[in-house]
Amino acid sequence: VIADLRELDRRTGGTGGARRLCWGPEWRDARAFLGELLEELGLSAERDEAGNLWARLDGAEGDAVAVGSHLDSVPNGGWLDGCLGVMAGVGVLRGWAESGEIPPRPLVLVDWADEEGARFGRSLFGSSAAAGRLDPADLAESRDAEGRNAAEVLAENGVDLERAPQARGRLNGIGAYLELHIEQGPVLEREEISAAAVEGCVGIERWRHRFEGEAAHAGTTPMEMRRDAGLSAMALAQAAERIAVEADGGVATAGAISLEPGVVTAVPGAAEVLVDMRHPDAGALERMREAVDEEAKVAAEGRGCEWTASRIWSIAPTRFDAELVQLAREACREVAGAERALVSGALHDAAEAAALVPAAMVFCPSIRGISHSPVENTSERELVTGIEAFSALTSRVLARD
Amino acid sequence: VIADLRELDRRTGGTGGARRLCWGPEWRDARAFLGELLEELGLSAERDEAGNLWARLDGAEGDAVAVGSHLDSVPNGGWLDGCLGVMAGVGVLRGWAESGEIPPRPLVLVDWADEEGARFGRSLFGSSAAAGRLDPADLAESRDAEGRNAAEVLAENGVDLERAPQARGRLNGIGAYLELHIEQGPVLEREEISAAAVEGCVGIERWRHRFEGEAAHAGTTPMEMRRDAGLSAMALAQAAERIAVEADGGVATAGAISLEPGVVTAVPGAAEVLVDMRHPDAGALERMREAVDEEAKVAAEGRGCEWTASRIWSIAPTRFDAELVQLAREACREVAGAERALVSGALHDAAEAAALVPAAMVFCPSIRGISHSPVENTSERELVTGIEAFSALTSRVLARD
Repeated sequence: VIADLRELDRRTGGTGGARRLCWGPEWRDARAFLGELLEELGLSAERDEAGNLWARLDGAEGDAVAVGSHLDSVPNGGWLDGCLGVMAGVGVLRGWAESGEIPPRPLVLVDWADEEGARFGRSLFGSSAAAGRLDPADLAESRDAEGRNAAEVLAENGVDLERAPQARGRLNGIGAYLELHIEQGPVLEREEISAAAVEGCVGIERWRHRFEGEAAHAGTTPMEMRRDAGLSAMALAQAAERIAVEADGGVATAGAISLEPGVVTAVPGAAEVLVDMRHPDAGALERMREAVDEEAKVAAEGRGCEWTASRIWSIAPTRFDAELVQLAREACREVAGAERALVSGALHDAAEAAALVPAAMVFCPSIRGISHSPVENTSERELVTGIEAFSALTSRVLARD
Repeated sequence: VIADLRELDRRTGGTGGARRLCWGPEWRDARAFLGELLEELGLSAERDEAGNLWARLDGAEGDAVAVGSHLDSVPNGGWLDGCLGVMAGVGVLRGWAESGEIPPRPLVLVDWADEEGARFGRSLFGSSAAAGRLDPADLAESRDAEGRNAAEVLAENGVDLERAPQARGRLNGIGAYLELHIEQGPVLEREEISAAAVEGCVGIERWRHRFEGEAAHAGTTPMEMRRDAGLSAMALAQAAERIAVEADGGVATAGAISLEPGVVTAVPGAAEVLVDMRHPDAGALERMREAVDEEAKVAAEGRGCEWTASRIWSIAPTRFDAELVQLAREACREVAGAERALVSGALHDAAEAAALVPAAMVFCPSIRGISHSPVENTSERELVTGIEAFSALTSRVLARD
């Protein structure tokens, strides 16, 4: 599996990092390489209406077990994000194909299309289509950095945007979906754990908070006569941090702020701050959102500003299947020597698949928690442990009654 | 005077506001109109090496009294900023010229070149040249929004940038410099005062504070493992506000902030906030600067960030001439019925002139404190009061022994 990842990196990476931007030439090269690997196993790949790629190894009976992740990357991305799970899935199929034995259940490999959404801003494209949660209208107006629209680019890749939701039927007959991924965060490294079960994905509330005060001259306007919208927005960002710290297991981030007019000689008359809040528990997430709104009102009123807020995006928390998570914990304990389950702070295709089929994931640690960067990495020792834990999990799931 | 201001606005303003950007066609139109007004008085104008325009009405004896301000405006500026003082100065000369009497001292009108610095970023160009405080190197690399360099644009206006400092001799033989200007702030309107003496201009410390932490995923990085540079910068902005409130008479403004990478899904790994601090007292300004630096250290250390700061620009406070300020107070009391002296939070040409000659100013109120905007305005009643107070001041100064 690691040799396959290295070969993929050689073909589609480089000093600037991974270049497998979905629907582009390097992504197609990556899929061609995946096709070669499947061909070596005597398998052929099939694409569905949303551009997801599927391969099937027949098994003895019953519902299939699906394994996979995504080959696409962000621009200047890392060598593991997504493709680790695809190549580990190929490894599972290879193990059975080369053993000469027939697996107790059919095994399905899936490479989801456009997980990152890095080109048109819509993450989880292929998996949400398969989960019946894709609305083509979300992409109707989207253009990439070169100004090309999504429908045109997808059509070049054989995908009709309007027909993409028909991929939904693809999860029929699948009894479990399993995915190996890097953590993309610092927790496992800190705890020195090489592989962990993932219980679910956090819910996300992403909001734009706008404050309107009055622009004024930075020199001639006494402090007590100001209506500084910038300070209101910054006070909210500080409050959101405090609220997240108090909401055990929650995070809140003010990653973007803009001031108007935004010059050193003017008191800001308007300000917008974007706040991203996440929590594994839906109730706790809602309480965070309400507390942030309360603090926004206070921050506005304290400086004579008007406050409005609008939701940019939200998603409810996902709980993975309890039985599969338990099997993942046991597989990690057996292989990695420690039993740990955590909730993913990032979204994954598994969260979409979980809408229709029981799902679970395994995480490998990320060095310094860094991802979406050319320096993204995991030690070879821990990669081996993660891949083996994932393999052990699939064996346990295949062996279930 | 008000009729002249209205005619100037008709020729060089419009619905988008004043368009007298220095060294451009509307600014030259404004100067042509000023030339017409002087010609009506039998006076001719002369330009110095820095592009300042001078006219002289001979007087009985002794040092001259200079009056003036600047005709140039910011883009989309107001109809009073600068030209009020020039036209009021013309009014003073007109009064004497039409009276048939010879003033007790020579009267000099000056229209300073490029007070705003709106095109090349260097404010107080002409007055600093006359004050011996202009270094042509400050403008050597400056380009306007169209990419044209300052030396080239000045040459089109007959000004050799390298020779501009030779304008210094122009303040020789001048015993007092007087300037009428709008307040550009809300204090006089709040206090219902139509004209006030100006004691001086604040000192300014303008700094760039940079915080470096670590960029991280907004979902996968627990709060306690973050090194959020954005929150450090925002905490400093809040602290600067508090420090200014506590420094009686001081102001501090965080008008611009930038986060890196500046996206909603990432904890900011670096942040820069620009802080502009002003105070009439040099010692108090220095204490503000030190307190802001202390708070910056605390804001950085509290979140595991590195802090650096660099001075963008600074200027020491200017105290106008005590005797002239006293005469301005008396003139305002006589005409406006109230005696008030304040320190300007904005800079003016008078602050440069004050380096070489005794100077003072008179302020008219600004409606809602707004300036550098097409809606900049002062009621006609208060304009008349301000112009009359300024006239009374010049009479008192001319009448001094």
